[in-house]
Amino acid sequence: MSQGNTTPRPQARIAKGFRDIEAAELSGLNEMLAKIRGVYERYGFEALETPAIEYTDALGKFLPDQDRPNAGVFSFQDEDEQWMSLRYDLTAPLARYVAQNYQTLPKPFRRYAFGNVYRNEKPGPGRFRQFMQFDADTVGADSVAADAEMCMLAADTLEALGVKRGDYVIKVNNRKILDGIMETFGIADAGRRLTVLRAIDKYDRLGVDGVRALLGQGREDESGDRTPGARLSSDQIDEIISLLTKADVSDLVSPSNDETIEWLAKSTRLTINGTFAEGLDGLRQLAKLTDTAGYENNRIKIDPSVVRGLEYYTGPVFEAELTFEVKGDDGKPVRFGSVGGGGRYDDLVARFTGERVPATGFSIGVSRLQAALSLIGAKPQTALGPVVVLVMDKAEIASYQKMTQTLRNAGIRAEMYLGSSGMKAQMKYADKRNAPCAIIQGSDERAKGEVTIKDLIEGAKAAAAIKDNKEWKAARPAQFAVAEANLVDEVKKLIARHQD
Amino acid sequence: MSQGNTTPRPQARIAKGFRDIEAAELSGLNEMLAKIRGVYERYGFEALETPAIEYTDALGKFLPDQDRPNAGVFSFQDEDEQWMSLRYDLTAPLARYVAQNYQTLPKPFRRYAFGNVYRNEKPGPGRFRQFMQFDADTVGADSVAADAEMCMLAADTLEALGVKRGDYVIKVNNRKILDGIMETFGIADAGRRLTVLRAIDKYDRLGVDGVRALLGQGREDESGDRTPGARLSSDQIDEIISLLTKADVSDLVSPSNDETIEWLAKSTRLTINGTFAEGLDGLRQLAKLTDTAGYENNRIKIDPSVVRGLEYYTGPVFEAELTFEVKGDDGKPVRFGSVGGGGRYDDLVARFTGERVPATGFSIGVSRLQAALSLIGAKPQTALGPVVVLVMDKAEIASYQKMTQTLRNAGIRAEMYLGSSGMKAQMKYADKRNAPCAIIQGSDERAKGEVTIKDLIEGAKAAAAIKDNKEWKAARPAQFAVAEANLVDEVKKLIARHQD
Repeated sequence: MSQGNTTPRPQARIAKGFRDIEAAELSGLNEMLAKIRGVYERYGFEALETPAIEYTDALGKFLPDQDRPNAGVFSFQDEDEQWMSLRYDLTAPLARYVAQNYQTLPKPFRRYAFGNVYRNEKPGPGRFRQFMQFDADTVGADSVAADAEMCMLAADTLEALGVKRGDYVIKVNNRKILDGIMETFGIADAGRRLTVLRAIDKYDRLGVDGVRALLGQGREDESGDRTPGARLSSDQIDEIISLLTKADVSDLVSPSNDETIEWLAKSTRLTINGTFAEGLDGLRQLAKLTDTAGYENNRIKIDPSVVRGLEYYTGPVFEAELTFEVKGDDGKPVRFGSVGGGGRYDDLVARFTGERVPATGFSIGVSRLQAALSLIGAKPQTALGPVVVLVMDKAEIASYQKMTQTLRNAGIRAEMYLGSSGMKAQMKYADKRNAPCAIIQGSDERAKGEVTIKDLIEGAKAAAAIKDNKEWKAARPAQFAVAEANLVDEVKKLIARHQD
Repeated sequence: MSQGNTTPRPQARIAKGFRDIEAAELSGLNEMLAKIRGVYERYGFEALETPAIEYTDALGKFLPDQDRPNAGVFSFQDEDEQWMSLRYDLTAPLARYVAQNYQTLPKPFRRYAFGNVYRNEKPGPGRFRQFMQFDADTVGADSVAADAEMCMLAADTLEALGVKRGDYVIKVNNRKILDGIMETFGIADAGRRLTVLRAIDKYDRLGVDGVRALLGQGREDESGDRTPGARLSSDQIDEIISLLTKADVSDLVSPSNDETIEWLAKSTRLTINGTFAEGLDGLRQLAKLTDTAGYENNRIKIDPSVVRGLEYYTGPVFEAELTFEVKGDDGKPVRFGSVGGGGRYDDLVARFTGERVPATGFSIGVSRLQAALSLIGAKPQTALGPVVVLVMDKAEIASYQKMTQTLRNAGIRAEMYLGSSGMKAQMKYADKRNAPCAIIQGSDERAKGEVTIKDLIEGAKAAAAIKDNKEWKAARPAQFAVAEANLVDEVKKLIARHQD
């Protein structure tokens, strides 16, 4: 820090795309995390924390023609010239952990994890380069029961956080449905399949016309950027669009899961092939499991429009959506939308071992969910700050600090004013800290063995009611003297009054 | 992830110097963090979370002659070619935050923060490149009461974590004592002063002879590496060594803080200059504050040997040490040593603003402290795992899952076995998860509306007592059938039995 004198002063600015999280939001966040953890643990998942940094090749995300890892992740080289990256999700490090410890792990291996992930992307409104995810995964289970459980976990988690039934839906689909359709279309190329997937994934945002364009010849957005299309025929596009619109939850008709599956089985004009049939059967099994366990289809709902943008899903995919309406950017009401999702990814561990290890998981976008919860009134109240002991006489600082310590030892949040300003600034400080009361002991009080307790919350109310400064000085509302020996008891009573 | 087929398989290995933290350790860690947070909040500090990534110039750590940031931090460039770094502590980001938000913050600003920090250093045994710190800082307070409070906070935190009085000491010194001595020695050069500081800081590890060498002509370690010395005269070296040895806590005589201060004032053969006197006065004030607040001098102790290796401290410095003995690398008993420290740093915010903002703080090395706590028997017990519902009949999977869900809805940690193996492997899995019991329903039980509960903890005890496999089969200890309707009650009773 010695260079402070010789080098020009740096600018005090947070890095672009990052944010500081302050006390009130952190307190809400911690409550949320505790509730999520409670549900995940009840489901039998156990905690695991992998580091924020991994070898880049272990995370597995290269651009093929560059020797520098791609722009989506933050990467750097250590002294041994090995490329390392900050994790961009919690799934890739899990795959590394499982592959590395496969012999000793219980199988299936069920772990939960939460933590920050990092994306080297262009930041935007509500889009940060560091954000928190909270994941549960079951690795080593082929059973559709493992997928069904993820959907039930998602529903239970949202309810534990105070989201009411009817305000959320866990949408479920199976990648094999679409894979089967694409097989009948004769689309074998992985890149083109991904283009179709990503087009469908944009249905919520772009609507029918946008998806139609992306499935066909492509689409130009407002900024003039052109996204190339999947070049399907118009018959093929109709086929896919009918999947999406039938499932639209804004339809008046709300089909049961059985009805949706029956409709899927019959409605396609194409020959049903093996892959499609497997997908259908998977959905049937999953719906039976969730229905039997008591999750009605307005909570866990088969929806053929859900695909998830990631390439690596191999079977069931899920999306947790909040269905209540909020004001969109244009002032019109829109549904809040996705706060989490997941699915089955059977090939991630095989990247390391060559051996297929079936896996499924669910991930909550914590910050986005917290923003949603604040909209439905689950907003945390501003907590009471510490009791502030004022310094009326600097020579008596040791006795003020002892008083502070006495309060703390009784479990009361307390602090002595540590700045060097006078009485007025000290009171202002106590207000700014949202202190329930200030403790005052001048020489008069000390002589009598007393302290004055100034109730700042009551005082603020009284001040709002009194207009006249003179009247104020006469009344001095909401402050009272007590024997110093009774300080703890009186402060406890005062705090209890304001916590009701 | 599609490149898995075309590129060679990556090796599944965690990056060098990093570690995975598993469930048992995490559970102990979370308990610790909650207790530390409780004490810090009681002291009136409020939470703040800054991001893991900052602009490199905001963190302030360059090697002067390189355009690449130095090896101690992990650094990389974003698309705008700006250098960013992972934080190496929580103090530098705090200085950035305070400078950036100075106008709106309450003054003094009191915040706590915990999180991982990252060092691009050579890893060694017990030395990791990612580790957790838990800090409290008061920014904008000149008062020695703010420093005294840090020492009391440190003591209260260790006690809240179960460290007994007598098993720890918070050692306090003031940099100005040594600054004053160096002034009388005529050492003005900052680099040479730092060499003296670092030599003294190694007293615990190297003893008198090692420090003597480092204060004089330098020292060669076992590997043959030579550390240059501070080239003090032998009189000067004697002067400093007498400071260290007088304060040695292994002395039979345990001086009171007043005695130590008196001894400091008298013992030096040098003329006491202004800086030295300021340091002495600071210690006197601090001791008065901690004594008055009830912290005896075996808890908060003036110790002239404490200096802290960091250059930026400007006044009081503290070191939290555990004094109980553990076995050292050579098998001989050594004191566990430092688990945290801090001090006053009045110039960090001025790096940005040019204006001096006095500040003081304390930081706990969380991982090191957790290791220490496990040595004094505060080791967490292995928690009970989830109840495991076995799958006896794959066609009945929906009803097993419903049973699992019923247990969960009653607040019981439970899971259905999700693998594809038979009965024996399922029981092995339940054991590996440390399940309190397994729930079994074959067709016989189902016909009767019953389930069998197998008490795995009782069963393990019984198995240890029974030698004969035949006898085992006849007795089938620790398992009993109950009506399915009573499942929740019976499992609750069983878990309660094992939690006593």
